[in-house]
Amino acid sequence: MITRSLDNALKRIISGVYVITTRAGDIINGMTAAWVTRVSFNPPMLCVAIGKTRYTHELIEKSGVFAVNILGENQIDLGKHFGFKSGRDFNKFQGIPYETEKTGSPILKDTAGYLDCEVRNSCDAGDHTIFVGKIVSAGVNPEIRPLIYRREDFF
Amino acid sequence: MITRSLDNALKRIISGVYVITTRAGDIINGMTAAWVTRVSFNPPMLCVAIGKTRYTHELIEKSGVFAVNILGENQIDLGKHFGFKSGRDFNKFQGIPYETEKTGSPILKDTAGYLDCEVRNSCDAGDHTIFVGKIVSAGVNPEIRPLIYRREDFF
Repeated sequence: MITRSLDNALKRIISGVYVITTRAGDIINGMTAAWVTRVSFNPPMLCVAIGKTRYTHELIEKSGVFAVNILGENQIDLGKHFGFKSGRDFNKFQGIPYETEKTGSPILKDTAGYLDCEVRNSCDAGDHTIFVGKIVSAGVNPEIRPLIYRREDFF
Repeated sequence: MITRSLDNALKRIISGVYVITTRAGDIINGMTAAWVTRVSFNPPMLCVAIGKTRYTHELIEKSGVFAVNILGENQIDLGKHFGFKSGRDFNKFQGIPYETEKTGSPILKDTAGYLDCEVRNSCDAGDHTIFVGKIVSAGVNPEIRPLIYRREDFF
């Protein structure tokens, strides 16, 4: 039996939990996001929607690169760390180990995997921008399962 | 321990399973897709990536509307039904009950929910187009849980 409800229908769009990172010159930043999907087989591409007021939005527009770090089942705290403060005011990478791959965007350690991307297109979408990235490098930790987003884990 | 692997990293982008439907004049069609994500809080919007060669792509470009039908845990067969044949050659709605909401796109029965959308933007992404839709009507079946996409359920 269908009940009309926008909020409840939106909750049924399943997603993972990701830390989206970027590097613009000497500046690195990252933020937690759930709105990521694959969009092309050939070339392999994905998109991420980033709020227009976010510092990461400004930095990706400058740099044209980002990495999607796929959080693992036990990384809710890391998701909160990158989710609740702005990198404008606070160095989120203090004490957080990372490496870099092709784009220089931070690749966090011990996640379920990462996808390092170059922006190939972008698209206005209400209060967010969709950045479309071609995947230029990717990896997994085979033993770590990805975290599925549940609102109650974060709010 | 990170292993470089594009295919395995892509498998870790979690998604649901959806039937994307549309209506262009007297023609209705639908196809199974997994590449859907939310993209804006205000106005509420989502995006779906549709392969450029698909009949549904041609129809959404004409009509400017689509609906996202969120398949439930027990609807793998319905996902296969809408996934493996083209609506160019075959009436996929034969024997499939549906209703319509604001856009006229078919809303399938007994799914986990639906989001009826008007296209507000679109964006080239490799072999797919991203259609960005403003949600104009939505509903859920509270007792039906959404299906999580697993490749082995379909291939």
